Amino acid sequence: MEKVKLKLLYSELRPELDKIEKELEVAVGSNSLLLNEASLHLLQAGGKRIRPVFVLLAGKFGDYNVDVMKQVAVPLELIHMASLVHDDVIDDSEMRRGQTTVKAQWNNSVAMYTGDFILARALEYITVIEDPKIHDILSKTMIEVCRGEIIQIEDKYKLDQTVRDYLRRIKRKTALLISSSCELGATVSGTDAETAARLRRFGYFIGMSFQITDDILDFTSSDEELGKPAGSDFIQGNITLPVLFARKDPLIYGRLKEAVGKDMTDSERKEIVELIRTSPALEEAKSLSDQYLNKALKELMLLPKGNANKTMRNIALFIGKRKF
Amino acid sequence: MEKVKLKLLYSELRPELDKIEKELEVAVGSNSLLLNEASLHLLQAGGKRIRPVFVLLAGKFGDYNVDVMKQVAVPLELIHMASLVHDDVIDDSEMRRGQTTVKAQWNNSVAMYTGDFILARALEYITVIEDPKIHDILSKTMIEVCRGEIIQIEDKYKLDQTVRDYLRRIKRKTALLISSSCELGATVSGTDAETAARLRRFGYFIGMSFQITDDILDFTSSDEELGKPAGSDFIQGNITLPVLFARKDPLIYGRLKEAVGKDMTDSERKEIVELIRTSPALEEAKSLSDQYLNKALKELMLLPKGNANKTMRNIALFIGKRKF
Repeated sequence: MEKVKLKLLYSELRPELDKIEKELEVAVGSNSLLLNEASLHLLQAGGKRIRPVFVLLAGKFGDYNVDVMKQVAVPLELIHMASLVHDDVIDDSEMRRGQTTVKAQWNNSVAMYTGDFILARALEYITVIEDPKIHDILSKTMIEVCRGEIIQIEDKYKLDQTVRDYLRRIKRKTALLISSSCELGATVSGTDAETAARLRRFGYFIGMSFQITDDILDFTSSDEELGKPAGSDFIQGNITLPVLFARKDPLIYGRLKEAVGKDMTDSERKEIVELIRTSPALEEAKSLSDQYLNKALKELMLLPKGNANKTMRNIALFIGKRKF
Repeated sequence: MEKVKLKLLYSELRPELDKIEKELEVAVGSNSLLLNEASLHLLQAGGKRIRPVFVLLAGKFGDYNVDVMKQVAVPLELIHMASLVHDDVIDDSEMRRGQTTVKAQWNNSVAMYTGDFILARALEYITVIEDPKIHDILSKTMIEVCRGEIIQIEDKYKLDQTVRDYLRRIKRKTALLISSSCELGATVSGTDAETAARLRRFGYFIGMSFQITDDILDFTSSDEELGKPAGSDFIQGNITLPVLFARKDPLIYGRLKEAVGKDMTDSERKEIVELIRTSPALEEAKSLSDQYLNKALKELMLLPKGNANKTMRNIALFIGKRKF
């Protein structure tokens, strides 16, 4: 439902996005039956394709050519897809976006190698780009995404981590890929360095806001809206911002401490979700998300006006208004 | 023991190999404590560094510069290391070269992400190379290695696969990375295209011979020599050449059919190993390995003479004489 509405905001990009979607289908194709099925399963699980959207929009600030945009949009989305399928192994996730995950449909090994294969395909795309600067941004992004995942493993089940730990983690996990999408879209379309840097910062801020919002939704949405049980992140040991704010209440802290890392029954899960929902933590998290959003909007105000700027603004405002 | 002897054959490369070893240590360094430990564990488990050796030797046919060689040797070894750590997940291996694997020391998730991280680091090295042809070979190699692993999963426990299936698999799994090492070593040192192509073919043939030999050793070596139980490959469902040849005997076939994919006791494992050892299968496999070896030697004979040629010849002959 929500996904459909977000897509309306960039409906003018439909023809280009369809082109990218077809290219993604080609990219994950292989001679291996198993790999083909697993990759297509992953691709068809969809997603918002928000990284390609930001590449395209950033490209509109320069000399826009969809075929050039595609060359960076496809590997960026592939890196994202690969990280998702590996995430599902780490988090032991059965469902994502209402669909069974690759690791659930097949097993951990298949998920691992599907991810490896998709990552390798991303690299194949990267190699045809001749500009060393773009290579550099893409590879650094990939490395940081990987590092982010490692940090995520290290921070698991640590109820006593700091908010700073959380922010560092989501920066690498989410914000970086979006900021690179914006920066690369600008760079390949030949904008000046200042515009590219501004778009990179916009991407970073919007990415931070986006991930905080996602982490809030894990507690506020219904199981049906999420396509997985509410509170899944907590069950998987991921300590997100709402939890970090909620633990300030000693009663909640005590309850969280008992629950973290334990096998929870369904009613225990619902109790934890309810505890967080009725605490001030979600409002506090929303407020931090809004701070990032405002920083993103400020960057936009300093960028050239036009359709791309307007669409970016609408996406930012949409993220700010996502229903809790 | 054997590893030490092989190393003597390229002792003249020691200073360069030490340089590469140091660079590998830097390459796998990170801020993450867990990742650092896991990567160092993997690095210190050692290995023959045969890919860097072939890069260096191939480079000696052109304009040899160790710092240029290093730029391709390091990512090639990193790709190899990453594939090993992911292999251990797929094969559920507890031991490799007499050491606990990353997945055994930590768990599957850590092994998966250590591999991802190392792969990302390989990519980082690749990006600093400006020659698009070299990018292309490296990324294609990485993709084919990944594909090889997928095919390995698909072919697991299939006792009725063909010898052709096996050869296709080890080509991608082993031969390709060695042939790319030779080709890249030649290419970055500016040899003519014919020399590079010949070295690539040499690497391919020697890689095929090397892997067949390895698969023979899985049955002929003692548990101590292997650093893991003999017959491990078969227990893990990998159907290698000795098995494919041995199954021609209907009695052995029947016994293998019962055993494949089952949880075997230690005495059952030893019985299977003994069955293969006393069949003509090992001699037949050795003969196929020798055929590849001879093709490799033929390529060498058509290449310029010199120390590098001689060392490559000695390595080839060593592989041909590895004790069974």
